Amino acid sequence: MKGKKREFSEYIRLARALELILSEIKLSSKEKVTFEEANGRVLAEDVEARANVPPFDRAAMDGFAVQAEDTFGAGESDPKELEVVGSVEIGDSSEMRIESGEAAEISTGAPMPSNADSVVKVEDTYSGEESRIMVISPVSPGKNVSSKGEDVKLGEKLFEAGHRVDPSDVGILASSQNLDVEIRRRPEVGILATGSELRKPGTELEPGEITEINTYTLDSAIRNSGGSPERLGIVPDDADRIEEALGLSSKYDLLLVTGGTSVGKKDIIPDVIAERGNLIFHGIAMRPGGPVGFGMVDGTPVFSLPGFPAATLIAFEMAVKPALLEMQGTSLESYHLEVRAELDRKINSNLGRLDIIRTKLSREDERYVAEPIRLTGSSILTTISRADGLIVVPENKEGFKRGDEVPVKILEGL
Amino acid sequence: MKGKKREFSEYIRLARALELILSEIKLSSKEKVTFEEANGRVLAEDVEARANVPPFDRAAMDGFAVQAEDTFGAGESDPKELEVVGSVEIGDSSEMRIESGEAAEISTGAPMPSNADSVVKVEDTYSGEESRIMVISPVSPGKNVSSKGEDVKLGEKLFEAGHRVDPSDVGILASSQNLDVEIRRRPEVGILATGSELRKPGTELEPGEITEINTYTLDSAIRNSGGSPERLGIVPDDADRIEEALGLSSKYDLLLVTGGTSVGKKDIIPDVIAERGNLIFHGIAMRPGGPVGFGMVDGTPVFSLPGFPAATLIAFEMAVKPALLEMQGTSLESYHLEVRAELDRKINSNLGRLDIIRTKLSREDERYVAEPIRLTGSSILTTISRADGLIVVPENKEGFKRGDEVPVKILEGL
Repeated sequence: MKGKKREFSEYIRLARALELILSEIKLSSKEKVTFEEANGRVLAEDVEARANVPPFDRAAMDGFAVQAEDTFGAGESDPKELEVVGSVEIGDSSEMRIESGEAAEISTGAPMPSNADSVVKVEDTYSGEESRIMVISPVSPGKNVSSKGEDVKLGEKLFEAGHRVDPSDVGILASSQNLDVEIRRRPEVGILATGSELRKPGTELEPGEITEINTYTLDSAIRNSGGSPERLGIVPDDADRIEEALGLSSKYDLLLVTGGTSVGKKDIIPDVIAERGNLIFHGIAMRPGGPVGFGMVDGTPVFSLPGFPAATLIAFEMAVKPALLEMQGTSLESYHLEVRAELDRKINSNLGRLDIIRTKLSREDERYVAEPIRLTGSSILTTISRADGLIVVPENKEGFKRGDEVPVKILEGL
Repeated sequence: MKGKKREFSEYIRLARALELILSEIKLSSKEKVTFEEANGRVLAEDVEARANVPPFDRAAMDGFAVQAEDTFGAGESDPKELEVVGSVEIGDSSEMRIESGEAAEISTGAPMPSNADSVVKVEDTYSGEESRIMVISPVSPGKNVSSKGEDVKLGEKLFEAGHRVDPSDVGILASSQNLDVEIRRRPEVGILATGSELRKPGTELEPGEITEINTYTLDSAIRNSGGSPERLGIVPDDADRIEEALGLSSKYDLLLVTGGTSVGKKDIIPDVIAERGNLIFHGIAMRPGGPVGFGMVDGTPVFSLPGFPAATLIAFEMAVKPALLEMQGTSLESYHLEVRAELDRKINSNLGRLDIIRTKLSREDERYVAEPIRLTGSSILTTISRADGLIVVPENKEGFKRGDEVPVKILEGL
C-alpha cells in the first residue's frame, strides 16, 4: 500500500448503476391474500369490480321519494300536494312502488321505491292534511339519489397491477366483491455482516471491537420497504468464509453483504462476488454510500454495501430500495415524497459526484427551511436519525447557495 | 318526521372537539421491547447512551497514524521522513504505541495507536528507504481521526419520550447498549358496525342490503397509526343490542362505533352513549365526516362515526387519529406532512364549517399542482382512494381561487 493509492477501477453514476441493477431484478412471485390482508401490499394483477357499489339506487337525503315531474313549478306560494303512501327505511327490501301524485317517506341510505326518480328534502316540505305533504321546492330527476354503481360500476377497472393497497382500497375491494386478490410476495432478503472486529449487540467489547448494527438497521429498513429480511450474522474478513456465506444467496431473492467495500486492505467482498459469480459494478460516484458493489451469485442479485452505518443506510436508500420496490412491481416514485425548501446555508459539492446531504426540515410560516446537518461523516449514524430528508446535489452542480430553493426527499423509512 | 327537520343540537368546531377529546385521553401503558422490536414504535421514556460510539479513537482514512507535530512544515519540496514501526488493521486490539519520528500504517476504522493523534492520508505520502515514508503534506492534531464518542457520548440523551423509532435509531439503540427500551403499548381499539342493512363481505346481498366495510377500512387505518384493532362485527339498529355492545368498551382503550349518527330516524348511538355513559359532543362543523359523536362509557372513550365509508375515514383522520397518537405519547405533527400546491380550480366552501377537500397532487416541474376531486359525496369511497391529500378550508374562509397556493395534507395512512 505504501505510497500507492488503490482506487476503484471505475466509479459509475447512480443513474447508470440503477439501470444495471434493475435490468437484473425479477418480479417476486404472486401470492393470494384476502382483501383484509392486502393493506400495504402491492397488487400483482389489475382488479375489476365484481359488483356495483352501491348495489341499488338509494336516497342520499332524508325526505320523500317522488317522481320529479310532480314537483315541477312547486314554490312557497304554489306548493304541490302529494299523497304519502308509505315509508322506506335503511335495510328495507323495497317492494314499494309509487305512482304519479304519490310520495314515500325515505331515510338517507334506504332503497328507492320503484318508479320514484328523486328525493325531496324533508326541509322542502310541510305536512298537509291527513297523509299528505306539501312540496315547496321542485327537484329534477336523479336529485338526492345515490344511484346503483355510482361509486363503483360492475366490471370497471379499479386498480392496476403495481398499486399499493391502502385502507380505503381495502373497503373498495370488499364492497366490489374482490374477497381475494393476487399480490406480490414480500421479497426475501438475506443480510450478512462481514468484519473480524464486529460483535453482536450486548457483547462486552474488547479494545478494537465494535458493535455490529448494520444487519439490524437494514432489517428495519427492509421491513419498511415491504421486504421480508433475515439476518444471517457476522462473518470474519476471510475470503473463504465469505465465499461460503455467499453460497446462501440462492435461498434469497436478494442478498446484502455489509463491510469490506472500502479501498483498504480488506475489500474482499467484491472480489469474492467476482470469483463466485459475476461482479457487475463496484463503486457509485456518490457520497456517502459510494463504495457499493453489485453482482449476481447463483442467480441472486447481491449487493456489497459499505461497513459504516450511515453510508450503509444511504446506499440502501439510493440503490437497494429501488430494487426491492421493483421486485414488488412498484416504483420509487410511489414512495418518495419531495418538498421544496429554502436552504439556510450554502452547500458545496464536487463536480462529477452525486452529493447526498442529510438535512433537517422546519416549517416557517408558509414555507419549509432546510438546515443541512454539518457532520456528514459516514460513520455518524445520528446524522441520519436527526435528518428529516435528503438533498441530492447532481453530478453537474458545484453546490447550492444560501437561500436557494432546493428539492428535499423526505426520509420516511430510515 | 314529516315537515319537521331534526338537527344536531350543537355542532362544534374541530379545534374545540379535539380539545374535548384529548382531555379524556390517557397514555397507554408502557411495555419493554428489544431494540430490534422498537422499529416504528414510540418511546415511553427518554433514552441515554450507555456507551461511547465509536468506543475508541479510530482512523477515518487509510494512511499512517502519526504525531501531527512531526508533519508540520511538510511539503512536496520538503518531505518529512518517518519510520514505520508497524501496522494496525480493523479489529486489532491496538497495543501499539508510537513515538515522535514514528508512524504506523493504518486502515480506515482501525484503532489509533496510543500516542498518535492524527492520520496522514496514504496519497500524501510516498515510500522512502527501507521501512520509511516521506510525508508531503502536514496534518493537524485530530485530523482524519474519528474520536471515541464522536457519534454518541456515554450518558448523552439520545431520544426523548414520544420519539418514534426508525431504522437508524434501531442502530443507535444497539450501539449505545440500549438493548431493551420502554415503549408505549399499541392502543387496543374495538370496532363495531351498526346497521340492520349491513352484511359481511362476500354475502349474497338481498335487495336493500349492503356490504359492511367500515370495520375493515378502520382496522387498516388503525394499524397504520400504531393501534391494535379488533373487529367486533355488526349490530342491528336496536338500542338494546347497541347498549349491550357498548358494554364491551371497558375491554378496550378506545371503542369506535360506525353508523347511526346521521339526522335520520336511527340516530341511536349518541343517545345510547348518553344513556349508558356521558356524551361529550355530537357533531363537528366539518364536511364530510361531521356527524361524529364522542363520549365516555365505563371509563373508555367511545366515538360514534358516520356510516358512510368516505365520511368514516375522514372523521377517523381528523378526530380519531389524533386520539390514537396521543395515547402513544406522540402527536399528529410528527405524522402529518404538508406540501404547498397550486390549485388548478376554484374551491367553494361554507363559512362557519371546516371543508375537507380530497385532492390529487401532481408534480409539474418544480411545483405541486392540486386537482380537487369533484365528487365529494360521503358515500364515495373511491374519492379517498384516488386522493393524494386533503385541503382543509378553515371555518372563516369561503374557499380558494384557482391559482392560489394552498397547503395540502398528505394522506399517508388512508
